[in-house]
Amino acid sequence: MSHASDLGTLPTPALVLDTQRLDRNLERLSERMARLGVTLRPHMKTAKSIDVARRVFPGGTGPITVSTLAEADYFAEHGFTDMTYAVGVAPHTAERAMRLRKSGVDIKLLLDTVAQAEFLGEAGRAAGVTPSALIEIDCDGHRGGLRVEAPQLLEVAAALASHGVALAGILTHAGESYALHTPDALEAAAENERAMAVAAAERLRAAGYECPIVSVGSTPTAHFATRLDGVTEMRAGVYMFFDLVMHGVGVCSTDDIALSVVSTVIGAKPEKGWIMIDAGWMALSRDRGTAAQRVDQGYGLVCDLSGRLYPDLIVAGANQEHGTLAIRSGSSAALPDLPVGAKVRILPNHACATGAQHERYQVVTGADGAVSAEWPRIRGW
Amino acid sequence: MSHASDLGTLPTPALVLDTQRLDRNLERLSERMARLGVTLRPHMKTAKSIDVARRVFPGGTGPITVSTLAEADYFAEHGFTDMTYAVGVAPHTAERAMRLRKSGVDIKLLLDTVAQAEFLGEAGRAAGVTPSALIEIDCDGHRGGLRVEAPQLLEVAAALASHGVALAGILTHAGESYALHTPDALEAAAENERAMAVAAAERLRAAGYECPIVSVGSTPTAHFATRLDGVTEMRAGVYMFFDLVMHGVGVCSTDDIALSVVSTVIGAKPEKGWIMIDAGWMALSRDRGTAAQRVDQGYGLVCDLSGRLYPDLIVAGANQEHGTLAIRSGSSAALPDLPVGAKVRILPNHACATGAQHERYQVVTGADGAVSAEWPRIRGW
Repeated sequence: MSHASDLGTLPTPALVLDTQRLDRNLERLSERMARLGVTLRPHMKTAKSIDVARRVFPGGTGPITVSTLAEADYFAEHGFTDMTYAVGVAPHTAERAMRLRKSGVDIKLLLDTVAQAEFLGEAGRAAGVTPSALIEIDCDGHRGGLRVEAPQLLEVAAALASHGVALAGILTHAGESYALHTPDALEAAAENERAMAVAAAERLRAAGYECPIVSVGSTPTAHFATRLDGVTEMRAGVYMFFDLVMHGVGVCSTDDIALSVVSTVIGAKPEKGWIMIDAGWMALSRDRGTAAQRVDQGYGLVCDLSGRLYPDLIVAGANQEHGTLAIRSGSSAALPDLPVGAKVRILPNHACATGAQHERYQVVTGADGAVSAEWPRIRGW
Repeated sequence: MSHASDLGTLPTPALVLDTQRLDRNLERLSERMARLGVTLRPHMKTAKSIDVARRVFPGGTGPITVSTLAEADYFAEHGFTDMTYAVGVAPHTAERAMRLRKSGVDIKLLLDTVAQAEFLGEAGRAAGVTPSALIEIDCDGHRGGLRVEAPQLLEVAAALASHGVALAGILTHAGESYALHTPDALEAAAENERAMAVAAAERLRAAGYECPIVSVGSTPTAHFATRLDGVTEMRAGVYMFFDLVMHGVGVCSTDDIALSVVSTVIGAKPEKGWIMIDAGWMALSRDRGTAAQRVDQGYGLVCDLSGRLYPDLIVAGANQEHGTLAIRSGSSAALPDLPVGAKVRILPNHACATGAQHERYQVVTGADGAVSAEWPRIRGW
């Protein structure tokens, strides 16, 4: 879907994706994973776009990770057949996933309880297919999953076997790595994630279970792992676009951030040092992920249309359809002259959250500003 | 669009709207405004739904307030003709709004600069219509607008006249009232909003300008104003649904909150006191508006399917598609027994933000749990 437009004439607010940065980010992690000898199973929860998925897989069957069955259905419709739904399975998602499986999609489900093994087995029998499941391992206390040493690990494996569910392997996610910001700590988090995953797989194998997939992943650990022995695959999502939270963690520079929101100046409040724009939290999301980091970026950093950052200019506040630009507290930078009608580009705190506020990407390549395509995004569950 | 379903069998996460509470909330403010002698111009930015709008206006032409031109187009298509677009006008929105005006919709635009008066006049001439504008007044330093005493107030009025734009009146919004929580402070904020609006209108009239509309509004001040002499209309949006932020301000009880998200339990972490659900920030939004209030409600309060609150159970954390339920810190309440597959209902922090994460409402009436209809929502700009 090609159309003639450019960033300066686009109705605002609009979500912009720079494929030059996107491709560079994709290549960076693909090369790393090839070097470390593991498969990359990108998480499509950030992009939610077939056009982005095809940028990773020009061939187009996967492997991918999804966060909703709406994503699973959508990517399956577009020919993807190897996917992992990385959210704990519930009775209604088990049934729906079995319909996908029946249609030939190798969808793997996540669980960590005997109850889930039971209803997943039942859903498989009802649909006449063999479900495939990964046991979730908790490597850092972040969220769900079983500790490596938990008695339930073998109980769940046994329940899968007795309920007719294939054990595809184990999966873990170093969610706590997002709170780190030094290379040493990130390397240690990656090694811990690896070690816990491998130990869980070894424990299952020692008990007589095959455990073909050993899946780890988070964007920070994917970029700081120095070895992945025993791991078979890496999952990461936000690495495609990057964002200010990942910049704060130390995984990327602001020049790597492929996603931005174009916005128009709609007013000013000179006595307060404010410039008002038409991108509020509806366009930027309510995500304030950098508030917990060393540098709080407000609701985002402000660039000109070519992507050059204005020194210390941030989105200091956001209402539903209003953003307030201001110079970062403590800085002596001057407020730029941006009259009503001027356009800016905002680098987001959290690409997954900002992307979710929009229906489509306006696609540009580097700094030239021509919009070469519109790529739709999907949403819902 | 009627369909047989109930809250217990709905695929989750799902956005639920209780029309019993909705109607009660609508009636409460309509009655107040009738008593105070002003027109209610509801803000449709919260509901973004023609079905909700028709609940307020069974007749269906307005007056309404909108936050995007996508809303303006949508409500115009459904027969609404009297609307105010309450976000400062930009060149591209001026042109688009003039197309709506040309089609017979009395859309009023907001501005506070001479530059906006100029390009709005130009857009009107290009479209062959007379634009209509409200001058934004800053009553409490919250966001944009001119102070009553600002020299620009008369300059903008003069620019409107000389560029062929009709001055429809003035508009102000007591945005700072959201930070209050005592009846006295809220009454004072309402009286300040009223007084500033009336003073601005009087100043314009003294200078020879007609100023027919004197528009004030915010959900807190709408519910705490004791007199509105000189005001012609009140704008409010979140009052339809209410939410935990409004509960914290003191405008509603939790029993008034008409919006909730149904979610399914997908795991547990008993050693941490956690129950995992399938509603993360994608379903609840990243809004943490109660974090700045006296009682921090996390990402929401947890009810059973009938809407009864579990004592001190909150959504303590949220990832993209995972929510973590836990007992509020400092409480001795026990974690309820909610196995995998159990359903809960979450009352949201901010109805505007949570609603925006969903494509449709599942409509119920009171505690009976039968879903009587699906109402679509719109999004985008």
